Amino acid sequence: MRVYKIDHIGVAVTSIAEALPLYQALGLAETHREEVPSQGARTSFLPAGESSIELLEPITPDSPVGKFLAKRGPGIHHLCFGVNDIDAALADLAARGYRLVHRQAVAGAGGKRVAFLHPEAGGGVLIELAEKGRP
Amino acid sequence: MRVYKIDHIGVAVTSIAEALPLYQALGLAETHREEVPSQGARTSFLPAGESSIELLEPITPDSPVGKFLAKRGPGIHHLCFGVNDIDAALADLAARGYRLVHRQAVAGAGGKRVAFLHPEAGGGVLIELAEKGRP
Repeated sequence: MRVYKIDHIGVAVTSIAEALPLYQALGLAETHREEVPSQGARTSFLPAGESSIELLEPITPDSPVGKFLAKRGPGIHHLCFGVNDIDAALADLAARGYRLVHRQAVAGAGGKRVAFLHPEAGGGVLIELAEKGRP
Repeated sequence: MRVYKIDHIGVAVTSIAEALPLYQALGLAETHREEVPSQGARTSFLPAGESSIELLEPITPDSPVGKFLAKRGPGIHHLCFGVNDIDAALADLAARGYRLVHRQAVAGAGGKRVAFLHPEAGGGVLIELAEKGRP
């Protein structure tokens, strides 16, 4: 169940179009956009080495990202670790008493199986786990 | 000046000792601790692939990390990108009009040359740049 990399950093933004220029100035390039209904968000991915920056723009104000923006303003929303076996990881964390938002993996961006831990489990950090995509 | 990876994610914690178990449960291991006077913080590094999680515990309440904790509570503090040439990166960003905390690189953890952009430049994200260490 070991984490083998940081899969991506989710950044809440009010507008992907307005957020992109800084990351482009840093030399990153957008490779694709996708709507993720489970997060109520439009996402833009910018690879950085083996990880990516995932810009998250809310589709509706009452989506999780929309609520985050209303409460805290734009900024880092979550941290996603890549794991090889998400089912084993979730079972192990639950057995250790960590609160999970998803006790079973759900469908995330890029066809990956993902799950969020409860922010309380992460000491104020919203942590997502993502399993390698299966072709 | 291209970003070539996510160097690390800085996480503000009230106590490294209390924060470590979750990351250890995820399979990460602490490789070293270090005091970084320029940030007024004690740091713990846990590698994850080519990146690391950097836990930041304040040395004093009036340090930047201490103030962050008092204002926002524990959570992700900054995002650090690895760059090959930090001097070129800072000059380029300044020329594009982005606000910088450090217009010249300063000494960071692990002997790296680092610099922070102003949070306003990062759209609410505190972005650090770190140049590869020179042996």
